[in-house]
Amino acid sequence: MDYSAKIDAAIQKLHDEGRYRTFIDIERRNGHFPHAVWTRPDGTQQDITVWCGNDYLGMGQHPAVLAAMHEAVDATGAGSGGTRNISGTTVYHRRLEAELADLHRKEAALVFTSAYIANEATLSTLPKLFPGLIIVSDELNHASMIEGIKHGRCEKKIFRHNDVAHLREILEGLDLSAPKLIAFESVYSMDGDFGPIREICDLADEFNALTYLDEVHAVGLYGPRGAGVAERDGLADRIDIINGTLGKAYGVMGGYISASARMVDAIRSYAPGFIFTTSIPPAIAAGAAASIRFLKEDQSLRARHQTQAHILKTRLKGIGLPLIDFGSHIVPVPVGNPVKCKMISDRLLQDDGIYVQPINFPTVPRGTERLRFTPSPVHGPDDLDRLVRALDKLWSHCALSRESLSA
Amino acid sequence: MDYSAKIDAAIQKLHDEGRYRTFIDIERRNGHFPHAVWTRPDGTQQDITVWCGNDYLGMGQHPAVLAAMHEAVDATGAGSGGTRNISGTTVYHRRLEAELADLHRKEAALVFTSAYIANEATLSTLPKLFPGLIIVSDELNHASMIEGIKHGRCEKKIFRHNDVAHLREILEGLDLSAPKLIAFESVYSMDGDFGPIREICDLADEFNALTYLDEVHAVGLYGPRGAGVAERDGLADRIDIINGTLGKAYGVMGGYISASARMVDAIRSYAPGFIFTTSIPPAIAAGAAASIRFLKEDQSLRARHQTQAHILKTRLKGIGLPLIDFGSHIVPVPVGNPVKCKMISDRLLQDDGIYVQPINFPTVPRGTERLRFTPSPVHGPDDLDRLVRALDKLWSHCALSRESLSA
Repeated sequence: MDYSAKIDAAIQKLHDEGRYRTFIDIERRNGHFPHAVWTRPDGTQQDITVWCGNDYLGMGQHPAVLAAMHEAVDATGAGSGGTRNISGTTVYHRRLEAELADLHRKEAALVFTSAYIANEATLSTLPKLFPGLIIVSDELNHASMIEGIKHGRCEKKIFRHNDVAHLREILEGLDLSAPKLIAFESVYSMDGDFGPIREICDLADEFNALTYLDEVHAVGLYGPRGAGVAERDGLADRIDIINGTLGKAYGVMGGYISASARMVDAIRSYAPGFIFTTSIPPAIAAGAAASIRFLKEDQSLRARHQTQAHILKTRLKGIGLPLIDFGSHIVPVPVGNPVKCKMISDRLLQDDGIYVQPINFPTVPRGTERLRFTPSPVHGPDDLDRLVRALDKLWSHCALSRESLSA
Repeated sequence: MDYSAKIDAAIQKLHDEGRYRTFIDIERRNGHFPHAVWTRPDGTQQDITVWCGNDYLGMGQHPAVLAAMHEAVDATGAGSGGTRNISGTTVYHRRLEAELADLHRKEAALVFTSAYIANEATLSTLPKLFPGLIIVSDELNHASMIEGIKHGRCEKKIFRHNDVAHLREILEGLDLSAPKLIAFESVYSMDGDFGPIREICDLADEFNALTYLDEVHAVGLYGPRGAGVAERDGLADRIDIINGTLGKAYGVMGGYISASARMVDAIRSYAPGFIFTTSIPPAIAAGAAASIRFLKEDQSLRARHQTQAHILKTRLKGIGLPLIDFGSHIVPVPVGNPVKCKMISDRLLQDDGIYVQPINFPTVPRGTERLRFTPSPVHGPDDLDRLVRALDKLWSHCALSRESLSA
């Protein structure tokens, strides 16, 4: 057995398929988001503008968030020092969970080290609580949900993306008395389309199924208090478990679920991915809580966020670029080829200081490779002008298609 | 299907078995570790001393660590804003990984959001790189390793804890040409015993197996530069993949693997638990790197840590308390009953302000419930006196056995 040869073959496969990833080393400048410094592999640096971050509102540089982090570091130090059960629960964790429960108007919330592990741990634990559970899952659910469902080793059924007729068909085929859970997302981050929350809740009622909604790309951004699309549409009370992140719109790190007190108590007690890991640092909990508090009150950032996305889409359509547009804050420009996608991204970075990472398989299906822009309230008019001009130039230069894919 | 009834039953089971967990809300005071404030459910507070933390050296309050965190927050904000591939790689992440590779004298390192997910993601990904992989695993490996091995869905064999004869027997029974990996730990945290690293490496050589060593409870604490037990014993170059944490001796948060450049490249490229999650905040990376740098040079904290453990063990033996003693820094006092274990812990906290969490199933096997003390360089002589007196009083009061279980 030649282990090295096997590893080389696995890496070569990625090169051959044009999907070997090279991480770009960037450092955002506090107070100057989305501007950042790119450090090249040779150590030289260039000023750039980040157009693909998930700190959707720029909360990662908000003074209230940074002050809360500084204060917590000064008061209680760097890390928590333990798992939640063994010396790693602090007032900061309690306050954050209370803030989240209040945000979603649910009885309780549970913080994990990431939304990835929140999904993985919760979905893989639910079959322990409900023996015989059948999870019915949207085919485009995030990798962390898919992993969680796999790891739970229960029966699973996949419905075609956002296809409620297909979902109904599947539910009708299941044993009425079996426990069931429908798992889906409110905003699918790669196309920026919305899940049909109301219709799925109606089906859940009809077939007595639990609902599990990933609002990772929606919390902070939608709803009068930033609780997500379910809040905006007045449907949050029909969702049994909401999953969210503290690392995107809230600008910090970590993930969570919010649900009934007894559901949270059960996940807390049975999920290895929650139990056996060091809790998040108090400073992270403090920063996230400050961010949530701010965005519960402030409407302006959310409004400007949507406006920015609308402006960028309008201008890209104006120059005839293809666009996937479902009316959300995400602006995906399909390229459809991993090599071309990477080439455009490289040119934008090197020639224009515009950083947008190519999105290739396995993040999106092969043949749907894309650039994914995330305009934010901190992008100024000049940033936008430079981006549109650079794309226009590049599309002409590369003789790329300008056919629109608008929904 | 009555979902609530199922949840209630699952929670009731924990109560019935005396292993329902209640998290204690504590806040350590920067500059005054291990002293902390306990906030009771009714909101009242009490000063306490933490005796069960995993911030083994008190690095969570080290000025160099806190300064690095403050500086990074000021320079670049709260979170990273993305996954490692999509805008979430910064100079802080690069520097931390270079620091870790240097620490273990390996070509590369890869940082995850936790050591739990580092174990889970790496072990579940290895079978993708080496089709037909057989993982041979110590029966007392940490939950995160067990989960990773399960999720990889490859063939697995369990050898009796630290039993190299049994390990040999298993290896002899396997196809010589099949890829194999031996997964084990250097310090098993619940008993504080050491894995037989040299003997396992010898077997790995003989049977052409890869070695995977979890040094989570050893990094920072053992070896001339704090790289762990493998470094101390001059065996690090014989380990293919070392797993470690930034959340225990280093006092911050996050986990990692260190290995050859090509191995790290492959895990980086194929592990969903690495790819699809927001990277750790730059401030966390900066704090962890500062902690590692400090402990590479400083020998005094490591030496005092061992001395403190030795003193506590000697004094507990002096009053005839049962003790599991394998010469490591961990001081487990077996109680052997979950209800009694919790009762002692409650009394210590309420009567004496001494916080040591009861360790019950599933963290340890049923019947081996224990108190697990983690003396550190920041525990003063008065803290130690108070602990020994309180335990002496309690053992008399509760007529508990004083039989020693020393190894």
